[in-house]
Amino acid sequence: MAKKSALQIAREAYSPKLPLGLQGNVSVKEGAPTQSVADQEEVKKLFPNTYGLPIVEFVAGEEKTYPQMNVGVILSGGQAPGGHNVICGIYDGIKRLNPDNKLYGFLLGPGGLVDHKYKELTGDIINEYRNTGGFDMIGSGRTKLELESQFESGIEIIRKLDIKALVIIGGDDSNTNACVLAEYYAAKNYGVQVIGCPKTIDGDLKNEQIETSFGFDTACKTYSEVIGNIQRDANSAKKYWHFIKLMGRSASHIALECALEVQPNICLISEEIQEKGQSLDDIVTYIAEAVSQRAANGDNFGTVLIPEGLIEFIPAVKRLIAELNDVLSSEKYLAASPADNVAWLLDGNLSADNTATLASLPSSFAAQLTGERDPHGNVQVSLIETEKLLSSMVATKLEQWKKEGKYSGKFSALHHFFGYEGRCAAPSNFDADYCYSLGVSASQLIANGKTGYMAIVKNTTRPASEWIAGGVPITMMLNMEKRNGRMKPVIRKALVDLDGAPFKAFAAMRETWKKETCYVYPGPIQYFGPSEVCDKTTETLRYEQQ
Amino acid sequence: MAKKSALQIAREAYSPKLPLGLQGNVSVKEGAPTQSVADQEEVKKLFPNTYGLPIVEFVAGEEKTYPQMNVGVILSGGQAPGGHNVICGIYDGIKRLNPDNKLYGFLLGPGGLVDHKYKELTGDIINEYRNTGGFDMIGSGRTKLELESQFESGIEIIRKLDIKALVIIGGDDSNTNACVLAEYYAAKNYGVQVIGCPKTIDGDLKNEQIETSFGFDTACKTYSEVIGNIQRDANSAKKYWHFIKLMGRSASHIALECALEVQPNICLISEEIQEKGQSLDDIVTYIAEAVSQRAANGDNFGTVLIPEGLIEFIPAVKRLIAELNDVLSSEKYLAASPADNVAWLLDGNLSADNTATLASLPSSFAAQLTGERDPHGNVQVSLIETEKLLSSMVATKLEQWKKEGKYSGKFSALHHFFGYEGRCAAPSNFDADYCYSLGVSASQLIANGKTGYMAIVKNTTRPASEWIAGGVPITMMLNMEKRNGRMKPVIRKALVDLDGAPFKAFAAMRETWKKETCYVYPGPIQYFGPSEVCDKTTETLRYEQQ
Repeated sequence: MAKKSALQIAREAYSPKLPLGLQGNVSVKEGAPTQSVADQEEVKKLFPNTYGLPIVEFVAGEEKTYPQMNVGVILSGGQAPGGHNVICGIYDGIKRLNPDNKLYGFLLGPGGLVDHKYKELTGDIINEYRNTGGFDMIGSGRTKLELESQFESGIEIIRKLDIKALVIIGGDDSNTNACVLAEYYAAKNYGVQVIGCPKTIDGDLKNEQIETSFGFDTACKTYSEVIGNIQRDANSAKKYWHFIKLMGRSASHIALECALEVQPNICLISEEIQEKGQSLDDIVTYIAEAVSQRAANGDNFGTVLIPEGLIEFIPAVKRLIAELNDVLSSEKYLAASPADNVAWLLDGNLSADNTATLASLPSSFAAQLTGERDPHGNVQVSLIETEKLLSSMVATKLEQWKKEGKYSGKFSALHHFFGYEGRCAAPSNFDADYCYSLGVSASQLIANGKTGYMAIVKNTTRPASEWIAGGVPITMMLNMEKRNGRMKPVIRKALVDLDGAPFKAFAAMRETWKKETCYVYPGPIQYFGPSEVCDKTTETLRYEQQ
Repeated sequence: MAKKSALQIAREAYSPKLPLGLQGNVSVKEGAPTQSVADQEEVKKLFPNTYGLPIVEFVAGEEKTYPQMNVGVILSGGQAPGGHNVICGIYDGIKRLNPDNKLYGFLLGPGGLVDHKYKELTGDIINEYRNTGGFDMIGSGRTKLELESQFESGIEIIRKLDIKALVIIGGDDSNTNACVLAEYYAAKNYGVQVIGCPKTIDGDLKNEQIETSFGFDTACKTYSEVIGNIQRDANSAKKYWHFIKLMGRSASHIALECALEVQPNICLISEEIQEKGQSLDDIVTYIAEAVSQRAANGDNFGTVLIPEGLIEFIPAVKRLIAELNDVLSSEKYLAASPADNVAWLLDGNLSADNTATLASLPSSFAAQLTGERDPHGNVQVSLIETEKLLSSMVATKLEQWKKEGKYSGKFSALHHFFGYEGRCAAPSNFDADYCYSLGVSASQLIANGKTGYMAIVKNTTRPASEWIAGGVPITMMLNMEKRNGRMKPVIRKALVDLDGAPFKAFAAMRETWKKETCYVYPGPIQYFGPSEVCDKTTETLRYEQQ
């Protein structure tokens, strides 16, 4: 028997809160037929069997009996707090419909379906994982379900296990693929339903129908806790600038949410930098000016939040990387040392603009860009330590200003990268409740014969009992986008909206945060205290739903 | 008015728990005269006025009236959670004795006393900081109070503010200096008392009299939270080895405590490595064997905890650094590039042993050792990224084993360093209570005319009401040690005791933890839940007091 912490044991007993509509017997309220968000004709043509379905909502209903059915569940992609609670919600949901129902978990992601790796999720297993973080109950994986051969391999095990429906818990791509799979099985009349669930800490799976993806709440709160602690340290020691990079792939939602939580001196938003066409030097100057301004007030300390995806949103760097991917994978590329590569590139082997950009980089970072490449020969952008790149360029600029007599402070930088610290945190009450509700919703979508739907829960800034659970046809969220040179139907990734309320709130306050020290210290996630502490939603959600 | 998080607001209302002996009127129980732990004759000679005093204990007593007095307080050295509560305890303690008493805070550490920088800590200020992390109320600093000129400068402001006693909140060095100052003021008949308080997250200020230093509990719990989250991620993704370096200066108490909390696959203990005379290659082989063994079981993931001070406890590396400090600060040292320095050193300019050690290091780390130096010309050991050094050497060894057919797994490493994330966390209930009790104890030591004492609280694994508060003469903890070539009276630093219960418990379990996956997930510090979750002490304290 595995040893458990006191908190693990205490959390086992937590009963997630459910929307009223899912608390007892459930009936379905169907809306009008839907349309995809764009490219209606193309999407409709690609999804003849799953297009145009109505949004459904679950409301209190009459007692009904349901025939026996089995369900399969898959975790897809990166971990997010609350995944286990989705599975627990599905389990409790289908057991309530019919105690003979069985739940199978496919192992290590979508690959488990293709390779027929699975285990039955019994009550004992489920109870071990209630309200826990991580995806370790069945594991996750990044295999993409895209090929007919995969779909056909899947149907073999689905038939063997007499599975009526699959639930795929994943991000935008996984849910797009869930929709394709639903359409395929529907077109083939295989009688297998496919339901999606909106997961990702990155927060980039949201739209008119999906208020938030699960895990974003817990991950951001965990990052905000440690950033808050670092800010308190900065304000106590008064001698360090902390450069803090935050996970979140392309979108800056996590950085923005943390900024709204902790009120740092600076938070960079990739989407804004791209929109304004800023250069690396613009960003460095912006930070250096803040350092200088604070130093003039005697404050030689501060915090800078940096979204993980920043580097690719700086137009000049993006152009440089594009040319490097091209030039360095061509025959001219000599597998020499990175430093030699840089020298060769600067010697007339890049366009003038990109030569200037490369020359402006500190040599170690120029070397990173021209060093080890991924299997496709591309620059490994995720390996670039943006937080160190920026602080080193800021230090150089401040040295220069010091010589020019424009700056006389002290600049000492420390670096942090937070990501793995939050992806598997035990879910906050919000994520525990939200995920469990999504799972129960999924069970109801299945019981009501739906396919190509994503389970949703709305009204999430209200108390859980007032939440509205239901399902939305995934086709409704699709549009056509170019992927690897081909137009494909995909769920649009939600980047930070510069006209949205969260960014506007941030933009209205950031000048004050930069000059003054307005740090807020959120502290660790609380599970047992007053509701205003334990059930607080993200600032992003609060501003968006205001 | 500064914006506060929901948790900050909720925690303002928390009333720290006090030992019974400090809850009402207090009387003093004095023990027998004491001796220093060693070198009694020398210590007695150096501290004629403060040597041999009795240990005191506070018990419930009669109501008494106390004359008006003012007190000064100083925060010294690195931040530790709970420092503000010590100050709040002093404030409430002296106000209870006499409402006209005043508390002054010296700013930015001991330097504030010397430079006469201070502020009066009124009830409004105190209330803003109850149960908060950080040292931002008055700031801290690293000025050492050692010189007569500093003591004399201090007495000027002490007299101006009519201060009867100073409380110095600090680690082993700061408390040693508090004792020297107490003796100096006593010898001069200045009528000023000096009281110390045991602070440090590193956990290395403990002995027969001091059960634990404050802040260790909260800092370790914060690190254990994020390490636990990372372990859940490792066990979900099943593809990364996480190399996690933990703050803690020389001693490995923090790494050991976190290991007992989270049950990682590997935790290195510097004191054991030194004791066994292990080489860097021994350590790398130990880790690589664990990686290989787990890979054979299909587990290409794991966690390694690394104490910050490790590198200096490896005898061969310690000898290399000593010779580098010598050779590179001599005239022969050319301020060439680090790579050139390494080449020059390896070319017969180091002893044979140290040449071999330097040659065994990956080139980037050899360069770190021979690159930038501190103002004294020494190698900057703290800048060496031990976690990356180890993982890179492990990778090299595994590659070699792969070629030899001895290993066939996948090894992919991620790196973390946790320190600033925990030093200023809001204190756990334990640290909030412990620190507040220390502060109230300090006020009682002052009221009872004591000087050269440290405030202490014992019996800390029992409920707070059963704690025993009192004071111990600092001279009792002194021994003579060589510092900068001179014998000086100092409080002995407590390294991890390899015969102590915490290490033995760890050693008894680590083989299982290494092979199997026994991760425990402590989760975030809780303030409001069941007592077994919220009032849990450290595992270190539990084992030591068992």
